[in-house]
Amino acid sequence: MNPVRPTRRGVLTGAAVVGAAGLGAGASALAGREAAATPGATRTVPFHGARQAGITTPAQDSLVFAALDVTTSRAGELADVLQRWSEAAATMATGAPVGGPGGLGGAADEPPLDTGEAHELPPANLTVTLGYGPSLFDGRFGLAGRRPAALEELPALPGEQLDPTRCGGDLCLQACADDPQVAFHAVRNLVRIGRGVVAVRWVQLGFGRTATTSAGQPTPRNLMGFKDGTANLRAEDTAGLDRHVWVGGEGAPAADQEWMRGGTYLVARRIRMLVEAWDRAPLGEQERVIGRAKVSGAPLTGTSEFDPPDLARTSATGEPVIDVAAHMRLAAPETNGGARILRRGYSYTDGLDLTTGQLDAGLFFICFGNDPASQFVAIQRRLGARDGLTEYLKHTGSAIFACPPGTAEGESWGQGLFT
Amino acid sequence: MNPVRPTRRGVLTGAAVVGAAGLGAGASALAGREAAATPGATRTVPFHGARQAGITTPAQDSLVFAALDVTTSRAGELADVLQRWSEAAATMATGAPVGGPGGLGGAADEPPLDTGEAHELPPANLTVTLGYGPSLFDGRFGLAGRRPAALEELPALPGEQLDPTRCGGDLCLQACADDPQVAFHAVRNLVRIGRGVVAVRWVQLGFGRTATTSAGQPTPRNLMGFKDGTANLRAEDTAGLDRHVWVGGEGAPAADQEWMRGGTYLVARRIRMLVEAWDRAPLGEQERVIGRAKVSGAPLTGTSEFDPPDLARTSATGEPVIDVAAHMRLAAPETNGGARILRRGYSYTDGLDLTTGQLDAGLFFICFGNDPASQFVAIQRRLGARDGLTEYLKHTGSAIFACPPGTAEGESWGQGLFT
Ligand code: HEM
Ligand code: HEM
Repeated sequence: MNPVRPTRRGVLTGAAVVGAAGLGAGASALAGREAAATPGATRTVPFHGARQAGITTPAQDSLVFAALDVTTSRAGELADVLQRWSEAAATMATGAPVGGPGGLGGAADEPPLDTGEAHELPPANLTVTLGYGPSLFDGRFGLAGRRPAALEELPALPGEQLDPTRCGGDLCLQACADDPQVAFHAVRNLVRIGRGVVAVRWVQLGFGRTATTSAGQPTPRNLMGFKDGTANLRAEDTAGLDRHVWVGGEGAPAADQEWMRGGTYLVARRIRMLVEAWDRAPLGEQERVIGRAKVSGAPLTGTSEFDPPDLARTSATGEPVIDVAAHMRLAAPETNGGARILRRGYSYTDGLDLTTGQLDAGLFFICFGNDPASQFVAIQRRLGARDGLTEYLKHTGSAIFACPPGTAEGESWGQGLFT
Repeated sequence: MNPVRPTRRGVLTGAAVVGAAGLGAGASALAGREAAATPGATRTVPFHGARQAGITTPAQDSLVFAALDVTTSRAGELADVLQRWSEAAATMATGAPVGGPGGLGGAADEPPLDTGEAHELPPANLTVTLGYGPSLFDGRFGLAGRRPAALEELPALPGEQLDPTRCGGDLCLQACADDPQVAFHAVRNLVRIGRGVVAVRWVQLGFGRTATTSAGQPTPRNLMGFKDGTANLRAEDTAGLDRHVWVGGEGAPAADQEWMRGGTYLVARRIRMLVEAWDRAPLGEQERVIGRAKVSGAPLTGTSEFDPPDLARTSATGEPVIDVAAHMRLAAPETNGGARILRRGYSYTDGLDLTTGQLDAGLFFICFGNDPASQFVAIQRRLGARDGLTEYLKHTGSAIFACPPGTAEGESWGQGLFT
C-alpha cells in the first residue's frame, strides 16, 4: 500500500471558487458581512462588525445550538467568560484553533488549548451568535433592571407539548457552518472555556438549513419536502431588516433596550413533524395545507416559486384558491398586521422516539425579530389556532434570547450589558 | 426585493469537478465502483455491482444508520420488501426520487411516492448498504439453517455499558452521502416502503467521517482531535481486501456462507467518548495513549503521518517509544496475528446526557471483515483489557450484520438468502 499524501479538504476550497463565480446578479446586491459569507475563496465570515454574524449571514449548511445556564453567582466571572468567548469565537471564525494560528496550543504536559477535531479544516463560514435568556435578568447578577420588556418568557401557545429539558436557558450559542464538525468544534471549545461558570442545558443539532436568507442562495427543502424560505426576509432587503429585525433599526430604541441597539431577539422552537402522518397525506392535501405547490414551491395562485401569491383569488366555485387555513396565508404579513420575521431554521433528527417507535425529526425553527410579541408570538397564536399544518406538528422545545449587537476588535460580547 | 432564481446547489457540482482534478496519483489506482465514488463530475456511486456499495466506497461525509426489526412472520413479505428496497435504493443512488426521474410520483389524491426533501439535490455519492442480523435466522422465516457460523451475536466484551435500545436488529440499512439530507431521505423512504413489514429499532446519525478508505482521501480527525484512518485498509489494496474483508475473497468460502461470497460482516459499536476527561488530559498523555502525534498523525517513532511505525524501538532509558498500552500498538496487525479490518466509522453527537450533564458524543465505529471472531472481537478484547484509551470510552451500542454481495440490475438484495 502506498497512500497518497492527503492535501486536506482541498475540495471544499475548490468549491468556494467555483461557487463564487456561479452566484449571479444577487451577489452584487450583498454588502459587508453578508457578501463575505457567500461561498467565496476564503469562506470566512468576519466575527467583528456592528452586528453579530449568523443572523443575516447566508444560512450555512449545519447548526449546533447550545442553551447554557450560568452556574456562578459572580457577574465578574460571567463577564470574563464572555470576554474569552469573544476572543475564541473571533479566532475560530478565521479557521484557526482557539489559541491562535499554529498548533493546538499548550506544552506536552498541559492539555492542548484547542480540542483539535477541526484542525486544518477550512473555516467553512463559521459564525457563532450569542444570546441572553430572560432568566439571566432574574437578579443573580444585578441585571434585573437591564431586561428589555421585549425579552419575556414566551407565553403558553397552542399546539405545544413542551419538554422542559429542551426549553429555556440563561445564554445561547448558535454555531453555524458549512461543515458540521466545524460547528461542533466551536460549541465544544466555548463550553470548555466556560467550564465552572456555565453549564450546557440542552443542545440541538441541525443537519440541513431550511431557510434562505440571501438572494444568492437556492431555496432548500424542509423534511415535509416543501421549499422553505421562499418568502423570507433577505439580507438584501436592508429596509425590511431595519424595520423588522434590528433593534433601533428605524430610530432610537426604547430606553430599556438602548444597549440592544443593533441587536435582535431570537426565538427557537423545536418543532417535531409527525412524519408518518404527513407521508400518508395525499399530495393535494399537502399542497392545500401549505398553500404552495410541492415540487415548484409556487403559490397555488401562480406557476413559479417567486410569483407573488394572490390571497384574494377565488375559484369558479367561489372557494379561495389559497385555503383559508393554509400555512402561508396565516403566516403572511397581510394576515399579521404587516409583521415579518427572519427565519433561519434547520432540519433535525434525533433518531427514534422510543415511546412511539417513530422518527423524532422535524424543524428546529429559529427566527429573528425586534418585537417578538407582535411577530413570533402573534403569528404562532394564529398558526396554532387555525393552521392546517398544526395537526402534523408538535412543538417540543422553546426558548427566547436577546442577541446583543456585534463587537469591534478587542471588545467583548458582554460589554453592553456588563459595563 | 428582487430575488435571483436559485440554480439549486450548483456549488456542489462545481466542487466535484475541481475535486476530481485535485485527486492526484491515488485516483489512478482506483478501479470500478471505487473510482466512480471519488468526487467526480457525476457524484454518483453505482448501486449495482458484484459487491455492495458503501463498503470500499471512499467514505462519504455523513451517515444515517438504521437497525430494523421484521414485524411480520411471512418470509414472502420480507422478500418483497427487499426487492422493493433494491429498486428504490438503485433509483435514489442516481439522484432520482423513489418513483423514478420526474416529479415525486402519485396523483393529487394520493400520497407522493417520494417524500421530497432531497428533490433536485445532487446525488451526493449516496450509497445504501444492507445487512442481516443474527436474529433474522432464529427460525421465524425458515432461515435457521442458513446462518453462517461467522454471524454470531457478539460476546460480552470489556469496557461495555450497553444500552439495549441501541443494540441488535434483524436488518440494517447504512446510508452514506456527502449531504446529510440525502442520507436521511434514503433511510426515511426505505422505512416508509417497509411499513407493516419492518419497524425501526434504532437510528444513529454520524456527522463526520472518521476513516479514510481510499488513497485519494485526506485523513479526517475524530472527536479526540486525532487523525483517524491512517493505517486503515484501503480500496486500492485489493489483495488485502480479498484477504480480510470479502467472504471467499481468497478461495471458496465455507459451505455455510456460500451465499455470502462477495459479501462481508459489519460490526457497529456506538462508542461514547468521555470528552471532558479527555480534554483535561495533557497533550503528552493523549499522544502516549494513541501512540501517534496529535497534529501530524505521525507514529511516535516517526515524523510524518505515513511513516511506518516501529513498535520495537526503545528510548535511551529502555522504554518502548510507542507505549505498551498505546491504542495503535494493541490494534495493529502485528499484535493481532495479522488480523486487519476496514474501518468506516463516523463521529456522532446526540446532544446532552441529562444524567451527567455532559455531551453525549463520540465515535459510531463501523468495521467490515470476513471473520469477526478473529478480527473485531479479538482486537476489541485486547483493547478493552489493556488499551490506555479505554478509560476515556464507553461502548454503549453494539450490533453485527452480514452484508450480502451486490446485485445486478433487476436483482434483489434478498435473492441469495430467499431463493
Ligand atoms: C415545522 C413547522 C413549519 C413548517 C414545515 C413550515 C413550512 C413553511 C413553508 C413550506 C412555507 C412556504 C415557503 C416560504 O415562504 O418559506 C412557510 C412560510 C412561512 N412560515 Fe412556516 N413552517 C413552519 C413553522 C412556522 C412557524 C412556527 C412560523 C412562525 C411562527 C412560520 C412562519 C412562516 C412565515 C412568516 C412564512 C412566510 C409566509 C409568507 O409571507 O408567504 N412557520 N413555512
Ligand atoms: C472511540 C474509539 C476509538 C478511537 C478514538 C480510535 C482512534 C484511533 C486512532 C487515532 C488511530 C490511529 C490512526 C489510524 O491508523 O487510524 C487508530 C487506529 C486503529 N484503531 Fe482505533 N479508535 C477507536 C476504537 C477502535 C476500535 C473499537 C477498534 C477495533 C476493535 C479500533 C481499531 C483500530 C485499528 C485496527 C487501528 C490501526 C492500527 C494500526 O495498524 O496501526 N479502534 N484508532
